[in-house]
Amino acid sequence: MNDTFLKACRGEKTDFTPIWIMRQAGRYLPDYQKVRGKVDFLTLCKTPELAAEVTIQPIDILKVDAAILFSDILIPVEAMGMNLEFHEKQGPVLTPAVRDENTVKKLSVPDPEDKMRFVMDTIRILRKELAGRVPLIGFSGAPFTTATYMIEGGTSKNFLNTKRMIFQSPELYSSLMDKITATLTEYLKAQIRAGAQAVQLFDTWGGIFSPQDFKVYALSYVKKIIHDIRDWQKAERSEPVPVIYFVGETAGLLEEIKGSGADVHGVDWRIDIDDAIRRLGNNAVVQGNLDPLALFLPQSKIEQRVKDILSRASSARGHIFNLGHGVVPETPFENVIALVEMVHRHSKR
Amino acid sequence: MNDTFLKACRGEKTDFTPIWIMRQAGRYLPDYQKVRGKVDFLTLCKTPELAAEVTIQPIDILKVDAAILFSDILIPVEAMGMNLEFHEKQGPVLTPAVRDENTVKKLSVPDPEDKMRFVMDTIRILRKELAGRVPLIGFSGAPFTTATYMIEGGTSKNFLNTKRMIFQSPELYSSLMDKITATLTEYLKAQIRAGAQAVQLFDTWGGIFSPQDFKVYALSYVKKIIHDIRDWQKAERSEPVPVIYFVGETAGLLEEIKGSGADVHGVDWRIDIDDAIRRLGNNAVVQGNLDPLALFLPQSKIEQRVKDILSRASSARGHIFNLGHGVVPETPFENVIALVEMVHRHSKR
Repeated sequence: MNDTFLKACRGEKTDFTPIWIMRQAGRYLPDYQKVRGKVDFLTLCKTPELAAEVTIQPIDILKVDAAILFSDILIPVEAMGMNLEFHEKQGPVLTPAVRDENTVKKLSVPDPEDKMRFVMDTIRILRKELAGRVPLIGFSGAPFTTATYMIEGGTSKNFLNTKRMIFQSPELYSSLMDKITATLTEYLKAQIRAGAQAVQLFDTWGGIFSPQDFKVYALSYVKKIIHDIRDWQKAERSEPVPVIYFVGETAGLLEEIKGSGADVHGVDWRIDIDDAIRRLGNNAVVQGNLDPLALFLPQSKIEQRVKDILSRASSARGHIFNLGHGVVPETPFENVIALVEMVHRHSKR
Repeated sequence: MNDTFLKACRGEKTDFTPIWIMRQAGRYLPDYQKVRGKVDFLTLCKTPELAAEVTIQPIDILKVDAAILFSDILIPVEAMGMNLEFHEKQGPVLTPAVRDENTVKKLSVPDPEDKMRFVMDTIRILRKELAGRVPLIGFSGAPFTTATYMIEGGTSKNFLNTKRMIFQSPELYSSLMDKITATLTEYLKAQIRAGAQAVQLFDTWGGIFSPQDFKVYALSYVKKIIHDIRDWQKAERSEPVPVIYFVGETAGLLEEIKGSGADVHGVDWRIDIDDAIRRLGNNAVVQGNLDPLALFLPQSKIEQRVKDILSRASSARGHIFNLGHGVVPETPFENVIALVEMVHRHSKR
């Protein structure tokens, strides 16, 4: 079994630097397109056999060192009681947008094995089908990033409604966040119970805050989830599952982020990874941080960047190679295959 | 005359911390709405009397310490030969998008007093009407941010076309940037000649780069503009006009940004300003950095943040208070008025 990824998460020495890629099961892959051509996105998420199939594709095609559950961060939001649709151009649309007490009150904290059973079923299938080839990563959105979609009713440019709620109705925001945090905690526990061997919390929009607001309005809820998962695992005496915390724009927030309690910190590409390590502390295990659009470079130039990131990241206790954000659909997939090979070759110890 | 802003730009001691606000002449002001109700946005930019009128409004209403020319960063792009329209929801639309050699070749480097005379006329009116009450800031987009609009044909989410050109056709990008840089240099010189007493370069999208790409593909052109303006001013033996360089997401890039040659560095709100000063060096003069959406807070909370920023920024050689980005249209304008008063009161020395 290739457990290099899990070893790196724990800061243990590895024979090479493991790599996986955010959105590695996605539209840039012709094999994914074939499956997606038959069903819409939400149906794909909710059909365990198909979700498992696209989860495994990048393991076969790219030879990455971890599989990540194919799903969407808005699945638990739908399970909380909101109506979720994906529109081709606009992206996700959630109704009704959560902006008052009444709407918050109507949201539930769902039992994941009831309302999101298809996710746990996907994980159970995957653990069988992967048969130990590579570890399986589960995930959820972080509470703040999840909240932005609920408050805005979808994606946003400047998160006006979210920040307006935070700044004008902090108690309403906190009651919403309590429900989201409880939901995501149970959801991640259920994923771990079903077989996820690591989990990643995606705080894609965490970077829209000043450091002090980030700490109060985003990070505190992440810390609570991680703390609760650790306590639960201690009580269950199960092997601790590494937690990865990814924030979309980390550069100004790293001194706060380092207190998250996560085992691994995901770093975006807008900062040199050695600079990020300095700010997180040398004891950090980091994940990142190639610009996803650098995959449009000629392969010789991609190779230079791979070597540069590997060398800069050598100051950390552990390094998992990844992009600084999800791979984009237009990416030449042969460059993604080449990237994985380069990371493996140049990091061989 | 209130020359506090200019003194602060030069790093000289001032009696209080000067403040102006990005997009201070804008939709959040009822007086602006009145003028804008009569004409469309582009007509407003191109009618010197009206542009001067809305430029002066925030001086009267807010009591800010500098006026900034009312205009748009895409005015020089239209003058270079592209078709520019503003659509109500979509924002600016530029056609045809610049993506090949042929389209770059067709672009001109316009004579600003010919193709953008209305801007210089606005400045000339303003200097008369302001009569020394506060200094007048001129501006342009920085070359990279200007290029993104030309390549994408408008705004963008992930700047795919821009980065694709940079990474796949670096020579095409550089030929485009040479024309943009020449245009903006002449444009800024013309603004200074017409009476602008400081100029700001807006690199709103500079933060989408890794530090190394930022240096090569954005900063190098900014350095060239600043260098050329300085040389020209030396040759003309005119009093040096301070240059402010604002980047949209600075946190990961500050070590690069400090080499820009600008007198003042604008900092967005995603980093603590004392942290930014440490990274820029204590000799820096900084401008910033309240989160624009923090203006939705109750005034007592705004006041706490004002005091915090003033105190953190005291380690710099000079500080000009501003938001970390433009004020948004939905902002309660009475809070903007209060902000200016608070900055003045709490910084009185």
